[in-house]
Amino acid sequence: MRRPLWIKHAAQLVTVAGGKGPRIGAEMSELGLIEDGSVWVENGEIKAVGTTAELEAQFGEWAEDADVYEAKGRLVTPGLIDPHTHFVYGGSREKEFEMRLEGASYMDIMNAGGGIHATARMTRKATEEELYRQAERRLDSFLRHGVTTVEGKSGYGMELQTELKQLNVMKQLNERHPVDIIPTFMGAHAVPPEFKGREDDFVRLIIDEMIPAVAADQLAVFNDVFCEVGVYTPEQSRRILEAGKRHGLAPKIHADEIEPYGGAELAAEVGAVSAEHLLKASVEGIRQMAAAGVIACLLPATALYLREEAAQGREMIDAGVPVAISTDCNPGSSPTTSMPLVMNLACISMRMTPAEALVAATINAAHAIGMQDKAGSIEPGKQADLVIWNVENYQELQYLFGINHVGAVWKKGEKVI
Amino acid sequence: MRRPLWIKHAAQLVTVAGGKGPRIGAEMSELGLIEDGSVWVENGEIKAVGTTAELEAQFGEWAEDADVYEAKGRLVTPGLIDPHTHFVYGGSREKEFEMRLEGASYMDIMNAGGGIHATARMTRKATEEELYRQAERRLDSFLRHGVTTVEGKSGYGMELQTELKQLNVMKQLNERHPVDIIPTFMGAHAVPPEFKGREDDFVRLIIDEMIPAVAADQLAVFNDVFCEVGVYTPEQSRRILEAGKRHGLAPKIHADEIEPYGGAELAAEVGAVSAEHLLKASVEGIRQMAAAGVIACLLPATALYLREEAAQGREMIDAGVPVAISTDCNPGSSPTTSMPLVMNLACISMRMTPAEALVAATINAAHAIGMQDKAGSIEPGKQADLVIWNVENYQELQYLFGINHVGAVWKKGEKVI
Ligand SMILES: [Zn+2]
Ligand SMILES: [Zn+2]
Repeated sequence: MRRPLWIKHAAQLVTVAGGKGPRIGAEMSELGLIEDGSVWVENGEIKAVGTTAELEAQFGEWAEDADVYEAKGRLVTPGLIDPHTHFVYGGSREKEFEMRLEGASYMDIMNAGGGIHATARMTRKATEEELYRQAERRLDSFLRHGVTTVEGKSGYGMELQTELKQLNVMKQLNERHPVDIIPTFMGAHAVPPEFKGREDDFVRLIIDEMIPAVAADQLAVFNDVFCEVGVYTPEQSRRILEAGKRHGLAPKIHADEIEPYGGAELAAEVGAVSAEHLLKASVEGIRQMAAAGVIACLLPATALYLREEAAQGREMIDAGVPVAISTDCNPGSSPTTSMPLVMNLACISMRMTPAEALVAATINAAHAIGMQDKAGSIEPGKQADLVIWNVENYQELQYLFGINHVGAVWKKGEKVI
Repeated sequence: MRRPLWIKHAAQLVTVAGGKGPRIGAEMSELGLIEDGSVWVENGEIKAVGTTAELEAQFGEWAEDADVYEAKGRLVTPGLIDPHTHFVYGGSREKEFEMRLEGASYMDIMNAGGGIHATARMTRKATEEELYRQAERRLDSFLRHGVTTVEGKSGYGMELQTELKQLNVMKQLNERHPVDIIPTFMGAHAVPPEFKGREDDFVRLIIDEMIPAVAADQLAVFNDVFCEVGVYTPEQSRRILEAGKRHGLAPKIHADEIEPYGGAELAAEVGAVSAEHLLKASVEGIRQMAAAGVIACLLPATALYLREEAAQGREMIDAGVPVAISTDCNPGSSPTTSMPLVMNLACISMRMTPAEALVAATINAAHAIGMQDKAGSIEPGKQADLVIWNVENYQELQYLFGINHVGAVWKKGEKVI
């Protein structure tokens, strides 16, 4: 029996409590905010939430047997959830970043062995142990930024063995690292060079061999595909996602990032849990996502890094789409682990309010990866995943931007930062 | 006699050493990089710089009397310098940020008492002690982000007493806080409401009363003015800057931020040390700045926060202008203290290379505030202002963006982070 934990005197305790499905419209502004808030934790689980006075009355007599932590006028929120990452990969591509800024063209970089296929080569070559150590460092960084749950995608193998290697690394990390990891299979992340021009053959390989193998070993919860002009067509994407469904893998889709291509519409049609990127999603696609309840997973750090206009987050919320946000952590288009920056950018670049940014990074992100019963809000019965921020209120968390305000982090009741 | 300090085994020691004036053109890529680098510090001053083997040969026999710090394969750079901030101010404006995102118009915010005049009111009302405590917290945050020297501007008084109060706070902090503070008088930061429509009267007040008073008390090194359509004309700005020069205050100028207004040209004409913002500077203005050697102080975090295109950093460097970068830390248009983010944005938004971003945040920033003889590079005789970053090379510092990679900071040889 572990000692109980009592976090008290939060200037603002943002619970994000209440509601069943992902938050839409005005619900995205509901923070369930408690002033002078307190949380009581037993065995890693949230037992009670209320004002400090309320919890004092209820648990005060057991306080001397508890670990008491003074939030001292600071903000407390649920642990952040990053619902879209590619954090397991080999190598690093900072030299490519420099080459690009020194004026190298896309072809120069490809000729120098850069781009996604560089990461695929390095990921194929890396041992499981090497991948594990690199990915572990990235998880540590997520944790320092207040992130207690991440989704992680395979997709730097694009051959069965390497895809399984990435997913196995996630499985092992999930067992040993404090951060919860929700794995997604993404064999259709790009077209491997050896299948260029015969994409349908690779689609068949994914459907006939990879998905069954991944499902048989229970290595993934979701199945994702990069639906984009020059990568996978909506028709190919549909086949891959339907195949995943038959094997129990829920669909996700990288949609309409570079050109409008019917990705948002396809997400609605196949009943995807979430659609990702959506920089160029059509108005009709957005309408269909709202009708089908597909979560828009928006990635403003990627847009910043690629010098693109961010997605229409404000407009999507106003159209009734539930919005989540994510780092998209990956070596090519978003080499960052900072969900705090992503929240800031949701406000600055997508005109979301400070409250909406927090909802998008907690309960809606939880729904996007099927973790809504365990995480994403501070409610009795959920995991005690909690963050104290060195700011006085939730508005400051977004306003004082570009700064990691994390003061302390608990994962399942254990203080990890 | 303090114990010497020996920082050794830096994977890369970026010295930015050599050269006399601010770096221009190809010089902005010269990092003076030493692999497996070492720095030997005595009495807060850099005594020797070289490879670890070289310093081992030179100082090895005294190592047991020194504090030895293992950089262990990480990057070491000079302490960063922030050459443009408004970090001394009263109050906080996060509620205004939220109102704006909730759809409030400029007039709604003004009617709710927002904007720069809100900060002026709160700064006028605050006691010197209150201002000191708030500003001290911001300096602590700068230090956590690897910044060991900042410039700070007055300008939230726009009346003599409050301007002096801000400058006095900087003077006291400079004596007591590790961060070095270079003070700038900026009475002409906005037009105070009581002088609306009779700006020339306020210009006369600045010239006849404020500048002489500030200079008499030696409270400022620089004199800055907001030259912009609807604020101060180039002609008014010229008068203010020339008056400052007569009292020994070197000119700086907020120029061409919102509209092209001849600010860059004026900077060249009056021999300003630096011109700030420059989002809309004309090609001719840039050419004149290059010819006159005026440093362009660029503020990409402000552009991000205001959803503006960043300044033409790449083009200015290519045109032979020495470029420095800064947070512009202020409550209205850039509430951040993160120079690491500013360096990242210099690369991402202004296409500067990782090396140029570092030069702009160190030696060129030092030149922009007259600190080039004491700080901004790792060279014998300079202050031992040093940062260890938790990355392996200088490219990673910019590539793994949105993250504060600071591992340790020394100010004048004292470990402060
Ligand atoms: Zn992705
Ligand atoms: Zn300014």
